[in-house]
Amino acid sequence: MVKRYLTLISLAEANDLIARSFAFTPGTESVPLEAAAGRITAAPVFARFSVPEIHLSAMDGIAVRSAETARASEQHPVTLTDAVRVNTGNIVPSEYDAVIMIEDVWEEDGKYTIRKAVSPWQHVRPVGEDIGESEMIVPTHHRIRPHETGALAAYGVTHLDVLAVRAGLIPTGSELVPLGVRPVPGKVVESNTLMAASVLQAAGASARRYPIVVDDYDLIRDAVVRGVAENEILLISAGSSAGTRDFTADVIGELGEVLAHGVGIKPGKPVIIGRIAGKPVIGLPGYPLAALTVLREIVLPLLARYGLLPPEAETVDARLTTSLHSDIGTDEFVLLTAGRIGDAWVAVPQSRGAGVQMSAVRANAYLQIPASSEGVEAGGTVTARLRVPKRTAEEVLLITGSHDPALDYLADLARSGGVDLHSTHTGSMGGVLALRKRECHAAPMHLLAPDGSYNVPYLQRYLPDGDLLLLCVAERQQGIISREGLGFDDLPEHTFVNRQKGSGTRMLLDHTLQQRGIDPASIHGYDREVTTHLAAALSVKTGEADAAMGVYSAARALGLAFFPVATERYELAMHRDTLEDPRAQTLVETVSSDRFKQILRDLGGYVTDETGVMRELRAGQPPQG
Amino acid sequence: MVKRYLTLISLAEANDLIARSFAFTPGTESVPLEAAAGRITAAPVFARFSVPEIHLSAMDGIAVRSAETARASEQHPVTLTDAVRVNTGNIVPSEYDAVIMIEDVWEEDGKYTIRKAVSPWQHVRPVGEDIGESEMIVPTHHRIRPHETGALAAYGVTHLDVLAVRAGLIPTGSELVPLGVRPVPGKVVESNTLMAASVLQAAGASARRYPIVVDDYDLIRDAVVRGVAENEILLISAGSSAGTRDFTADVIGELGEVLAHGVGIKPGKPVIIGRIAGKPVIGLPGYPLAALTVLREIVLPLLARYGLLPPEAETVDARLTTSLHSDIGTDEFVLLTAGRIGDAWVAVPQSRGAGVQMSAVRANAYLQIPASSEGVEAGGTVTARLRVPKRTAEEVLLITGSHDPALDYLADLARSGGVDLHSTHTGSMGGVLALRKRECHAAPMHLLAPDGSYNVPYLQRYLPDGDLLLLCVAERQQGIISREGLGFDDLPEHTFVNRQKGSGTRMLLDHTLQQRGIDPASIHGYDREVTTHLAAALSVKTGEADAAMGVYSAARALGLAFFPVATERYELAMHRDTLEDPRAQTLVETVSSDRFKQILRDLGGYVTDETGVMRELRAGQPPQG
Repeated sequence: MVKRYLTLISLAEANDLIARSFAFTPGTESVPLEAAAGRITAAPVFARFSVPEIHLSAMDGIAVRSAETARASEQHPVTLTDAVRVNTGNIVPSEYDAVIMIEDVWEEDGKYTIRKAVSPWQHVRPVGEDIGESEMIVPTHHRIRPHETGALAAYGVTHLDVLAVRAGLIPTGSELVPLGVRPVPGKVVESNTLMAASVLQAAGASARRYPIVVDDYDLIRDAVVRGVAENEILLISAGSSAGTRDFTADVIGELGEVLAHGVGIKPGKPVIIGRIAGKPVIGLPGYPLAALTVLREIVLPLLARYGLLPPEAETVDARLTTSLHSDIGTDEFVLLTAGRIGDAWVAVPQSRGAGVQMSAVRANAYLQIPASSEGVEAGGTVTARLRVPKRTAEEVLLITGSHDPALDYLADLARSGGVDLHSTHTGSMGGVLALRKRECHAAPMHLLAPDGSYNVPYLQRYLPDGDLLLLCVAERQQGIISREGLGFDDLPEHTFVNRQKGSGTRMLLDHTLQQRGIDPASIHGYDREVTTHLAAALSVKTGEADAAMGVYSAARALGLAFFPVATERYELAMHRDTLEDPRAQTLVETVSSDRFKQILRDLGGYVTDETGVMRELRAGQPPQG
Repeated sequence: MVKRYLTLISLAEANDLIARSFAFTPGTESVPLEAAAGRITAAPVFARFSVPEIHLSAMDGIAVRSAETARASEQHPVTLTDAVRVNTGNIVPSEYDAVIMIEDVWEEDGKYTIRKAVSPWQHVRPVGEDIGESEMIVPTHHRIRPHETGALAAYGVTHLDVLAVRAGLIPTGSELVPLGVRPVPGKVVESNTLMAASVLQAAGASARRYPIVVDDYDLIRDAVVRGVAENEILLISAGSSAGTRDFTADVIGELGEVLAHGVGIKPGKPVIIGRIAGKPVIGLPGYPLAALTVLREIVLPLLARYGLLPPEAETVDARLTTSLHSDIGTDEFVLLTAGRIGDAWVAVPQSRGAGVQMSAVRANAYLQIPASSEGVEAGGTVTARLRVPKRTAEEVLLITGSHDPALDYLADLARSGGVDLHSTHTGSMGGVLALRKRECHAAPMHLLAPDGSYNVPYLQRYLPDGDLLLLCVAERQQGIISREGLGFDDLPEHTFVNRQKGSGTRMLLDHTLQQRGIDPASIHGYDREVTTHLAAALSVKTGEADAAMGVYSAARALGLAFFPVATERYELAMHRDTLEDPRAQTLVETVSSDRFKQILRDLGGYVTDETGVMRELRAGQPPQG
């Protein structure tokens, strides 16, 4: 048995350790004002001169001596002996002490007549009205807001001393290829330092990515020596575990010291906190979502100690759709898709696999399960920390149920209409159950009933009291996907990959097997499950299975053969009152649009005659429409 | 009487007019992934290949055939005949279908022994687990979040097509000098296009600033022709009024058409909405805060129609400290400083002068008084739209009362401690009244009582029931500021500039005048009021007045003479319970710090023996401390 970690400390201990171990002295640099927005001042900034430096007219009008206007009134207009035309911003000559707006002046033969007295200094912008020479404009550690560049320019500032934290990023790993190179199977594109650089830059640091270093102790050591010399903070990507080729901890230990190896967070446990030449050196785990978690929970708080505060997360209280169990002693972070259904927020957990980067693309929020908790049950309320502006999260429509590649294209079209479709692939029955619990806005489904009809019997059974709608996306072809053009009856002689229980595709398969008198037990691979059409097609393409059942578009996307088995009605089920939501209206309009129908025809395998047709189900009544 | 505007439409009409008048077709550009964070996709982005493309090990361990493990248990360990060592990320050779973690394996003589059966595909990352070839990663009009660059790289994306909206900015005005040139009195630094460029860039547009054009019809026309050709949107800064040198509307009219001249907003009324060659051309007003209002209320919504959504404003409900009256028919925008006192938010209106850019630097929020409203009374609740993250607004301590230049330095020191001091200059009495209404956290004051003591008698009178604290900032010298070294008794023969009623400085002046038997009416300029020490000193420096009363540091900052009159106790008054707020604790620590005392000594005119000393006032008791 291998002992993997030198130490395993809690997240709070890790951040305390960091706070104690470094001086956090940021570098500073001078930037021109044009590039100052978003930067943080390293010193107070003072006005170089007063604005205005001399009394100016605040209006287009005439400069006057106020004493001369004292007796003017509607009944007794006064024609001034001494006045001068000024535009807004012109100097008010020192012999005058007020300005009258041009709208209130009658001019004739170069003489000005007025009908109202004015008080001294009316419509005059006095010296220093805006700011006085030597006054402080902004203090130290002020983040320059974009509009403030204007004020700074007006007060004579041309350059600003701002905080500059340089972070170096060293990717290590013999399996890595650089961006732009097509990896052969078993190799991967080096993407973690790009992700880290983008995250650090967004927080206000500068980030420098070094070339990839293969798993070689000496090469890694040389890169670390250089990275420490050239930066305030160094991140070493991967090699932070305790596998046979994980050198990061040993290199840090040789050049400085390993303060901690292993932190009780998930994902992200194999992180290294080290110190070389007084500078923080962090070993990031190799799994992208583990690296992202360490960036968010450890590296950004570290940056904040230099004055670079990360963007703030808004939170919403949301109802969790599935139970999440977690180990005591580990702070676990779970990515979520949060959406507002009616007045309540619902949070759908994403895959917890640390290698599934798409989870972080799909997710708009996350939650933390503290080390003291064993998890949260489905239906419980959690605090979802948003990773997008709340307004953007408000645009989410949660789509839970059967998967179809056309949903991505529907999402693409709807996005321009301000609606953000988030699909969770649970299979048709999962969608029906989510709809019953009001945990999605719409449930895509294609469930064949014994009477040969689609969807309605299941909704009547599982949501008998619901006022529901069924919006037809398309009638679509399901068939056998294979490399060699297999038909349905070829299945028993070949390896198969199935879809998950509760999926309409699996039910269609079972129905068809029964019709043809084929025993599922005779099909090798019947128990191997994947959750999308494309995943099934991929299994076929790679040779893991000879055949799968799925839609034509998945076969076509991967260049595989397709043998049609059945045409089925693929519909979006939703509660009728959901249509009161303008986002749902946009969804209906998008499904019904000519553009979407054209996309379906281009994808192939869809019949669009029924696309956009709406069926109504009232509680206790036969369906309409 | 001059008719100034061709039309005057409401803000809502202006935005409707814009919506109807343009096609809003953004340009697109291809950017490398390293520069893609924050940009908005112009097309859906697809995975170039599956990730993983082949089954990979999810753990450091051994690849096995699961069937061979079926009988393993604690009681009956199984030594495998066929297994191979794999690290995380290694290919699982096709003859194996599961991985066992190295921690669960006993190795001896190259043989592996296990004590537990494994199910097929355990710890294997199947083909396409993360994403399948051809799957959509993100749809059109998706704003790339920093961490998503990692996923995009991993899926083979190297460049992205993103929205690109080019905005041109033409500064016009013969009074303008470029950034870096010291303006002579009457000239100003051209800063509005820099402000606009920073604001537009923050929203995701690219902004190009053209050289300054003097007030010459033909030169402006030539610049506009070029600006329209080279951009999707053109902003012309200033010349949008109807003064004698305002050419913008005529130029737009000649080259295209003026759709609206004048919108019912304040500040910002003299805005022009024009169209040339189908493109929006906006004439910005010249006053900086008018320009900023037009940028925020008209130009950013216009940009949003190209897909560039502006950052979202959080709001807080806040109690307004002073009444704001507004004209019916005008949407008025007022800048605010919002701070949280206890559990309630308080909003302090900033100067409404459109030329006072510092208002927009000091403000962290604003409110809109709709065209249908005559305003809001003091004490009323308003919706404050924050212009900083809420977390930053939470750091605000509202300091209302007497002004002293040292407050800026106190703010500078406190900022690094996470506290944001916002000072409002109302004079000492204004601060006492704000404290009574709980509309500030602390009130700086220096009120001389008839018995020769400072501050306490006034607090006992105006807050008789308060449990209060007085924190001494310094004992400071007040004196006569002049160019020629005037003394107090020289005042009647010279022009004077006074401080506002209720200010401690004015009360000290009145007290001293009375002591010396000088009639205020004998002092020319006694009624001319300014609100800060520096403003008073500026009036002296520019020759508008010969003398003013103020603190030494103001005289010194402007190189003026100073004749001491009195030493007074300048203290911060606050409610005792305010100290429960950690921010107030930070304030107290900062005032008491050696660094602050050193700054006071460096500024000059302060005695620091009492700095940091706290006096307590309990209701109905003599002061302690």
